[in-house]
Amino acid sequence: MNEENPSITDRQAPSFHLGLVQARAGSSASASLEKAISGIEAAARSGAQIICLQELFIHPYFCQSHDPQHFDLAESIPGPTTETLSQLARKLEVVLVVPLFEKREGEQYHNSACVIDADGEILGLYRKMHIPEDPQFHEKFYFTPGDLGFQVFQTRYAKVGVLICWDQWFPEASRATALLGAEVLFYPTAIGWLPEEKDEYGEGQKRSWEAVQLGHAVSNQVYLAAVNRTGFEASEKGGIEFWGSSFVCDPTGKILKQASETEEEVIVVEASREVLKEQRRTWPFYRDRRVDAYKGLLHHMGEDR
Amino acid sequence: MNEENPSITDRQAPSFHLGLVQARAGSSASASLEKAISGIEAAARSGAQIICLQELFIHPYFCQSHDPQHFDLAESIPGPTTETLSQLARKLEVVLVVPLFEKREGEQYHNSACVIDADGEILGLYRKMHIPEDPQFHEKFYFTPGDLGFQVFQTRYAKVGVLICWDQWFPEASRATALLGAEVLFYPTAIGWLPEEKDEYGEGQKRSWEAVQLGHAVSNQVYLAAVNRTGFEASEKGGIEFWGSSFVCDPTGKILKQASETEEEVIVVEASREVLKEQRRTWPFYRDRRVDAYKGLLHHMGEDR
Repeated sequence: MNEENPSITDRQAPSFHLGLVQARAGSSASASLEKAISGIEAAARSGAQIICLQELFIHPYFCQSHDPQHFDLAESIPGPTTETLSQLARKLEVVLVVPLFEKREGEQYHNSACVIDADGEILGLYRKMHIPEDPQFHEKFYFTPGDLGFQVFQTRYAKVGVLICWDQWFPEASRATALLGAEVLFYPTAIGWLPEEKDEYGEGQKRSWEAVQLGHAVSNQVYLAAVNRTGFEASEKGGIEFWGSSFVCDPTGKILKQASETEEEVIVVEASREVLKEQRRTWPFYRDRRVDAYKGLLHHMGEDR
Repeated sequence: MNEENPSITDRQAPSFHLGLVQARAGSSASASLEKAISGIEAAARSGAQIICLQELFIHPYFCQSHDPQHFDLAESIPGPTTETLSQLARKLEVVLVVPLFEKREGEQYHNSACVIDADGEILGLYRKMHIPEDPQFHEKFYFTPGDLGFQVFQTRYAKVGVLICWDQWFPEASRATALLGAEVLFYPTAIGWLPEEKDEYGEGQKRSWEAVQLGHAVSNQVYLAAVNRTGFEASEKGGIEFWGSSFVCDPTGKILKQASETEEEVIVVEASREVLKEQRRTWPFYRDRRVDAYKGLLHHMGEDR
């Protein structure tokens, strides 16, 4: 490492190491935070340099019901959680992707992720752009759609793109982020099965979730890390069985490591800049984009062009 | 079937049947055409209603070398091949997707696909938008990039999108076509291994090819049919081993049927409108697109916005 300017040297390192912390919701916010800290420390001990927590990691998935009381769970950014985790990032010299329920002015709230650099500084914020509203996933009730657009964060170790859960279904999101230079896309996530439909749809749902993200990694020639929660969270309507299975894949769509469906796990995976470069030179997709011909993407289906 | 207006009735049918003809290049253009006709007849006998041939099906993959003589292989559309196949389409009452080396005015050429409706009428043309130029895939030498944009064809049996081979790597292409209302995307293709790199890269290349297309099916909630050639075609530089493996997948990213790597095969698969509807209602991705936020897609990486 270059002592005087470690960041530049590290950005040119032949590889960088991704850490994923997959957990059950804790019994309280402080319990969840403690669990996250343990996971981050474990990932760092295993060599992780950029560590991502799951979506809304500090709470149970409260969007199962419409309850205005839940807005009390939100916090400002910066705020107490980012302060604690900034100190940890600085101490461990790791980059952190911290998904939070963000409180903004005027009773506006976002489903966000804060990126903290390895010196503890907040680099910026991604606010979830695509907001779902499905049975037991009532996010449109809670979250104002993101207003910061797609972003990339130049961290000490790599150029990092962050998208959140439902964003994963939108190739526009991964592409727009990759076009900003992302070397890796993180998807903090809270996806699971509704028990009543698992038998019929469960296999297809999980297959779709993996397939679409592997596709993003291939078409954008990036590493991709999906960080999902695990465990069953009950609700009046029956609850959600979060399916875990957090994974990292490479730009060929190969899953390099994947967590189990049901256990808390920390995954650490090396991402190679040589692989990125080789993939992009062998199949130079970015060379051949038809930027003259993509205006249709700015429209809805059935809309006059 | 409604005798007076069969097309409207068929468009509302609960399903439509896709046919894929995977073949080796014939020893001559007429031999390839005969082979294609046999394949189409076999597919129709098995119930196929929309049948797709592989990319540049009437020739060996001549793009392995730069040879201006090869421009003599091109033909006009309409032309002799489409006339023959229009008659066949009318006789069998099938829709045909016919990939051709298209001759245009002024020594301009395209890698195109002509869509012929079940009454034998030419519905239109797709001209390959993304043109590769890789070792032994010298398409930029032969083909003017498509100037017709992305398109969908309302055939008797379904709304059909056509993209060609290298287009498969571009999520913009599948999305733009799906936004026009495609129920199925066809990808006539000529992809294979270079023998000298197969050991090192072959597995990853084929995995990427499948993964990216499964991803398109999931994110766009369409059926997807990739129709690849098979067989080894020699050239001075060592040749290409086309990997076959033509497949149809459903909107959950499940491969419903797949041909072998090495044999000529005809595949017929039923595509269900109920599945399309259910997938789109269960996970309403199209509802949540952020058309206000996709302008970055009209730029290259590193370009000022």
